[in-house]
Amino acid sequence: MKSSSAQHLSELGEFGLIGRIRERFSAPEGVTGIGDDCAVIPQRSGRDTLVSTDMLIEGTHFLRADIPPFRLGWKSAAVNISDIAAMGGSPTATFLSVALPADLEAGWMEEFLRGYAELSERFGTALLGGDTTASPDRICINVAVLGECPSGSARLRSTACEGDLICVTGFLGDSAGGLKAILEGVERDADVQALIDRHYLPLPRVQEGLRLAATPGVHAMMDISDGIGSDLSHILEASSLGAVIDVPSLPLSPALRRVCTRHGWDAFQLAAGGGEDYELLFTCTPETEKVLDIPHHVIGRCTQGDGTTAWRGAGTSIRGFDHFRQGRPDAQDSSAR
Amino acid sequence: MKSSSAQHLSELGEFGLIGRIRERFSAPEGVTGIGDDCAVIPQRSGRDTLVSTDMLIEGTHFLRADIPPFRLGWKSAAVNISDIAAMGGSPTATFLSVALPADLEAGWMEEFLRGYAELSERFGTALLGGDTTASPDRICINVAVLGECPSGSARLRSTACEGDLICVTGFLGDSAGGLKAILEGVERDADVQALIDRHYLPLPRVQEGLRLAATPGVHAMMDISDGIGSDLSHILEASSLGAVIDVPSLPLSPALRRVCTRHGWDAFQLAAGGGEDYELLFTCTPETEKVLDIPHHVIGRCTQGDGTTAWRGAGTSIRGFDHFRQGRPDAQDSSAR
Repeated sequence: MKSSSAQHLSELGEFGLIGRIRERFSAPEGVTGIGDDCAVIPQRSGRDTLVSTDMLIEGTHFLRADIPPFRLGWKSAAVNISDIAAMGGSPTATFLSVALPADLEAGWMEEFLRGYAELSERFGTALLGGDTTASPDRICINVAVLGECPSGSARLRSTACEGDLICVTGFLGDSAGGLKAILEGVERDADVQALIDRHYLPLPRVQEGLRLAATPGVHAMMDISDGIGSDLSHILEASSLGAVIDVPSLPLSPALRRVCTRHGWDAFQLAAGGGEDYELLFTCTPETEKVLDIPHHVIGRCTQGDGTTAWRGAGTSIRGFDHFRQGRPDAQDSSAR
Repeated sequence: MKSSSAQHLSELGEFGLIGRIRERFSAPEGVTGIGDDCAVIPQRSGRDTLVSTDMLIEGTHFLRADIPPFRLGWKSAAVNISDIAAMGGSPTATFLSVALPADLEAGWMEEFLRGYAELSERFGTALLGGDTTASPDRICINVAVLGECPSGSARLRSTACEGDLICVTGFLGDSAGGLKAILEGVERDADVQALIDRHYLPLPRVQEGLRLAATPGVHAMMDISDGIGSDLSHILEASSLGAVIDVPSLPLSPALRRVCTRHGWDAFQLAAGGGEDYELLFTCTPETEKVLDIPHHVIGRCTQGDGTTAWRGAGTSIRGFDHFRQGRPDAQDSSAR
């Protein structure tokens, strides 16, 4: 391991840090550890246990004044359940840790729990434990989620094949458009409100993930949390492939198209560079794509390559999000500046 | 659920908040959810999965300037693995979430990971995933831990019986004494250093927990994180019992005795009210206690009662720690003031 005493995390970067952690810790034989949406732990019962965890920090991921606690509770559960969906598994249980300032109103937490419960009930996911502690100032939330799938059926990032089509399960960019609308304080007509709802109330694609994982020609899968500019590169690096993305084929909602026209925003930049759509990004053979019975959009193809993506028809450079480096050109995955 | 819009968390208290969460979320049939050291989830394989999670916040649980990152990494893993030990299970995997300021030196995290890895390797526990994100200022850490045990063998808090002896697996108060020494800046002779090491480098009692869970007459078990004044009350409330504790029988280390004599501290107050010893607190029949083949100390007995403890031979009132209310009379479970 390299000496790094003078290096700051902003130089190392989020993915550099994850690389350091992977160097130090190895997973036991047969277990999928760090580097996918979930860990995959075989049980003796013919089922695999899936585990993931996500942290939300006030000031990085949300501003208390901006997000109603119901929506924050919903989103905290949703983004974790989405990681189970990304493997093609069924979510079973969550574990909620919260650090709260002592002067927070108890009613805030009631509303948070109401949102958390409403999303959890939709997916039959039980809250089975957690931790409650005090924070000197900022609210910190961590959710760990458990799921399961039949042995060996989880879809990883590392299993894309050359020639696979690259697909997504729904519109891209709505969440980034909603965030941009919040940050720029634009007038909240019905279209803008629809985008904001997509930002605050994401719906994990659990049913779609289960269907995709039951389809043999579906090879690699993940959920879109940082934006496809960043997320696709994880699949490509893990699978040692490249990709060509046809930017004009990125699926845009009518609401996003209208809002972008009205405000002069670049909808494709939001769709490619903006995160938190929580749609599924997957690869499959062209034959499989023809018979898929879930809504989806083909956006490109896997090629030989070294992890990089060629963006066809894009006027601007597209990239995703790194928590320690920030500075994405147009949209960010955080509602806090 | 009661309306509480004007109530602050400091009034509701940590255990009030946990009560609210329990009201809202129920565990599926056959699953042990909120309210014990771990959730217990039966698998189809004859094994139960154990899950727990703990959050550590800079300024509440530690001060960055006070705790070397190696020790913080060690402790973050240890306190979680201790929750598996508390059920009598084997730890299998952990999941580490960290929120870090962008200007933190990368070397800090290297040292944190080195401590985390060293403790994890001692107990054969793999780091299988997590989350890395940015924090505006404070370091936030959350660990989720998975373990397993034979079906139905996990020891809960709710299964103590009237007439059971109350036992602990080792010395109490060393960690609280070490914390007090840090906070008061006392001279660090060998005894003081030993207490500080107990505070920073706890060793979860995994082997002891496994042995106890394999012994039929051992009824209830938990680990000591908030101090027995608080922790024992959880067993008593869950089991609808009372207890008599013989304060002079609380086991004190020679180092703690000497340091307390030297500085005029009340060793029994530290032993009863101080947290973070991470010894196991368990109840068993008197017949079982006679044949236990692990080191342990009998400190009292379960009686009929309503969750309260009678402290025999105590000069002062004894109570544990509540994160939202603070104000424990003598010692606290946090190195931050």
